[in-house]
Amino acid sequence: MGVEEDEQWMRRALEEAARGIGRTAPNPAVGCVIVRDGVELGAGWHRRAGMPHAEREAMADVIGRHGGEVLRGATAYVTLEPCSTRGRTPACTEGLIEHGIARVVYAVADPNPAHAGAADGILRDAGIEVRAGVLADEGLRLLRGFDKVQRTGLPWMIWKTAMSLDGRLTRPPGEGMWLTGTSSRAEVQRLRAEVDGIVTSGETVRRDNPRLDLRDPQWLEGREQPWRVVISRQGRALPEDAPLFTDAHADRTRVWKGDDVRGMLRRMVDELGVHTVLLECGGNLAGVCMDDGLIDEVVVFAAPMLCGGPVSALGGEGVADGVKLSEIQFARFDDDVMMRGVVEHASLTASAH
Amino acid sequence: MGVEEDEQWMRRALEEAARGIGRTAPNPAVGCVIVRDGVELGAGWHRRAGMPHAEREAMADVIGRHGGEVLRGATAYVTLEPCSTRGRTPACTEGLIEHGIARVVYAVADPNPAHAGAADGILRDAGIEVRAGVLADEGLRLLRGFDKVQRTGLPWMIWKTAMSLDGRLTRPPGEGMWLTGTSSRAEVQRLRAEVDGIVTSGETVRRDNPRLDLRDPQWLEGREQPWRVVISRQGRALPEDAPLFTDAHADRTRVWKGDDVRGMLRRMVDELGVHTVLLECGGNLAGVCMDDGLIDEVVVFAAPMLCGGPVSALGGEGVADGVKLSEIQFARFDDDVMMRGVVEHASLTASAH
Ligand SMILES: NC(=O)c1ccc[n+]([C@@H]2O[C@H](COP(=O)([O-])OP(=O)(O)OC[C@H]3O[C@@H](n4cnc5c(N)ncnc54)[C@H](OP(=O)(O)O)[C@@H]3O)[C@@H](O)[C@H]2O)c1
Ligand SMILES: NC(=O)c1ccc[n+]([C@@H]2O[C@H](COP(=O)([O-])OP(=O)(O)OC[C@H]3O[C@@H](n4cnc5c(N)ncnc54)[C@H](OP(=O)(O)O)[C@@H]3O)[C@@H](O)[C@H]2O)c1
Repeated sequence: MGVEEDEQWMRRALEEAARGIGRTAPNPAVGCVIVRDGVELGAGWHRRAGMPHAEREAMADVIGRHGGEVLRGATAYVTLEPCSTRGRTPACTEGLIEHGIARVVYAVADPNPAHAGAADGILRDAGIEVRAGVLADEGLRLLRGFDKVQRTGLPWMIWKTAMSLDGRLTRPPGEGMWLTGTSSRAEVQRLRAEVDGIVTSGETVRRDNPRLDLRDPQWLEGREQPWRVVISRQGRALPEDAPLFTDAHADRTRVWKGDDVRGMLRRMVDELGVHTVLLECGGNLAGVCMDDGLIDEVVVFAAPMLCGGPVSALGGEGVADGVKLSEIQFARFDDDVMMRGVVEHASLTASAH
Repeated sequence: MGVEEDEQWMRRALEEAARGIGRTAPNPAVGCVIVRDGVELGAGWHRRAGMPHAEREAMADVIGRHGGEVLRGATAYVTLEPCSTRGRTPACTEGLIEHGIARVVYAVADPNPAHAGAADGILRDAGIEVRAGVLADEGLRLLRGFDKVQRTGLPWMIWKTAMSLDGRLTRPPGEGMWLTGTSSRAEVQRLRAEVDGIVTSGETVRRDNPRLDLRDPQWLEGREQPWRVVISRQGRALPEDAPLFTDAHADRTRVWKGDDVRGMLRRMVDELGVHTVLLECGGNLAGVCMDDGLIDEVVVFAAPMLCGGPVSALGGEGVADGVKLSEIQFARFDDDVMMRGVVEHASLTASAH
C-alpha cells in the first residue's frame, strides 16, 4: 500500500486517539482504524484505564457492523505500537493475530525501551506485515506525557499564564479577577480538558481563590475533573473554605507541603497516575519551575494592556541564553492573543526518538 | 449625495492621504479626490512641507487631465478641513472658490482650535455646500501626530519593542543582535517609514550600536531619513565611530544631553518639526516614558522564546492599574507575533474630538 494511503489512514487513527486526550491517564491516548480495500471498516479509541485498548475497541466496532469475517486480511492502523505483554487485558498482538489481521501499521514505538519494537517480531512470526513509524512525530505529540513519564518519571508540564503585553501579571483594580477576556477563558477550559492534573501554589490560592476545574459541559462528558494539587510550604496556612477544598470535587484536591516541586511532580505521577499537568500560578513558582527545567510547553495569553513595574509573569533566576520555543501556534481570542509553543529541551528529547 | 457615496469617496481621499505618512512633517498628511457625476476626475496628496496642499494637487491633476472647466460644479473630498489662512501658499479655500467647486466634504476639522471650522463659513459664503466630519475617526488616525502637536506641543510617540514571550529583552549569545526574525525586521522598516524621528538612548547606542535608518528601498523613495535623536545624560560618553555619527545621513542625528525626556520631545517638535516619533530603546527609558504618559502607541514583537530573570522590556515604576490598549492589531511574522495598540489615554483624547 502506498505511503500516502498509509498516512491518510494514520491521520484518521490520530483523530480517534485525540478523543482520549485527558481521559486515559495513566494510560496513553491511542486510536485505531481498520481498513480493507480502501474502505474504513471501523474505528476505536482507548477511553480510560481499565477499558479495552484501541485495537480491541476498533475490532469490536468492525465486528458489530460487519461481523468478524471481514477482519481477515484487513489492515489495522494504530497510533502506538500494539502491546505485546499481557496486562489487565490480554496482549493486543494476540487479538490482532486471532482475528486474522494481515497488516499492522503503527506510528510510535512503545516509549518503554524494554518493550519498543517487541510487537514487530511477534506479529511477523504470525505472518502479519508490519510497518512502523508512519506519522511518528504526530503520534508522539499525542503521547508526550506518557512518553515523558516513561523516560523520566516526571509529567509533561504545560505552563499557562495570562499576562499583559509587557509580561506582567498586575491587574487593574475593579477588573475582577481577569486580565484576559471571556474567549481566552473558554480556551483555558479546553486546556484543562487536555491534562490529568493542575498544579497551583499556596500563594495563588490565598490571593485568587481559584476553582481550577472543568465547567464547560462539552469538556466534562466521560471525563473526570483533573486533579488539583496545591504546593505550599510548611507553616503557610491555606483558606479552609476555598472552593478547592469545599466544592463538589474537593476529593480531587491534594495539598502537598514543602518546596520540592520536582518531588511533588514525581508524587503526582506515582500516586495520582497523571502524565500531563497544567501549571497555573504566579511568577514565582513558574520561575522556579522554569529554572529547574520542569516546563515542557508554554501557553501565554497576552492581554491588550501594559503594566510596567516589577511584578513579572515569570520570575526565577532567568535563563541566561533564553529558551527557544518550537511548534509555535498563535490564535486570537477577541483582543487577546494566545501563543503556544514547546520548550526546546522538551521537543529535542522528543524528536530524538 | 448619499452618505454611502460620500464615505466611499472619502475612503479614496484617505488612501491618497496615506501616501504622505512620514513625509510631510511638520505638515499633516492630507489627501483629496475630486468627483463629478459619480466619476473621479483627479486626486492628489500633500507630498512635503513647502509643496502644494492636497486640494491644489488634486485640482492641478484634474486640470492636467480634463482642463479646468470640469471643476465647475464638482465635489472635493478632503481628509482635513481646507486651510483658510494664507500661509506659504494662498489659502485652499480661495483656490476651491476660484475654480468653481460646488461642494466640499471633509473628514477632520482643523486640530488648531483657533481655526477649527473656519473654512465652513468662508466656503458657504461663496455658495459652496459643505459637509464636515465624514469618516472623521479614520481621518484623525492619519493626523494623530499633527493633532497631538497642536494640542500639547508633544509628538505622537510609538514605542516599538522586541521581546521574548515573557516580556524580556535578554538575547541568547551567538544569536547576533536579533531576538526576532527577518520578517519582523522588515516590518520595523515599514514602521520607521511612518515616523519623522526615532528616539533612542545612550545606553542602547553603546550596547547595540544600532543604525536606526531606512534601508528598504521601497520606503526610501521621496522620503528623508527619519531624524535620529539620542538622549544621554551629561558625562556619559558615546562611541564617536558609531554609524549614527558616521554614516551617509549622520546629519540627521542629534544627541541631546540630560534626562528630561519630555523636554527633549518638545525640542524635537520645535527644532526638527517632527510630529510622530518611534521610541527604540531598552526597558529603562521605555519605563520612564511610560510612567510619564509619553507613549501613545505600542508595537510589540514577541519572539518565540522565554528568558525569565530580571531584565524587563518595560521598566519604570509600573502602572498600578495597567494601561489598556485599543484599536488592537495582530499580525504574525514567521514565528514572531506583532501586537499593536493605542494607549487608552491617547485614544480617549483623540476621540474626544
Ligand atoms: N495571570 C495568571 O495567569 C495567573 C495565574 C495564577 C496566579 N496569578 C497571580 O500570581 C500572583 C501570585 O504570584 P506569586 O508569584 O506571588 O506566587 P506563585 O508563583 O503562584 O506561588 C508562589 C508560592 O508557591 C509556593 N511554593 C512552593 N514551593 C515553592 C518553591 N520552591 N519556590 C517558590 N514558591 C514555592 C509557595 O506557597 P506558600 O506561600 O503557600 O508556601 C509560594 O508562596 C497572584 O496575585 C495571582 O493573582 C496569575
Ligand atoms: N529588544 C528591543 O526592541 C531593544 C531595543 C533597543 C534596545 N534594546 C536593549 O536594551 C538594552 C538597554 O536597555 P536599558 O534599559 O539599559 O537602556 P535604555 O532603556 O535603552 O536607556 C537607558 C538610558 O537612557 C538614557 N536616559 C536619558 N534620560 C533618561 C531618564 N530620564 N531615565 C533613564 N534613562 C535615561 C541614559 O543614557 P546614558 O547612559 O547615555 O545617560 C540611560 O542609560 C540594550 O541591551 C539593548 O540591547 C532592546
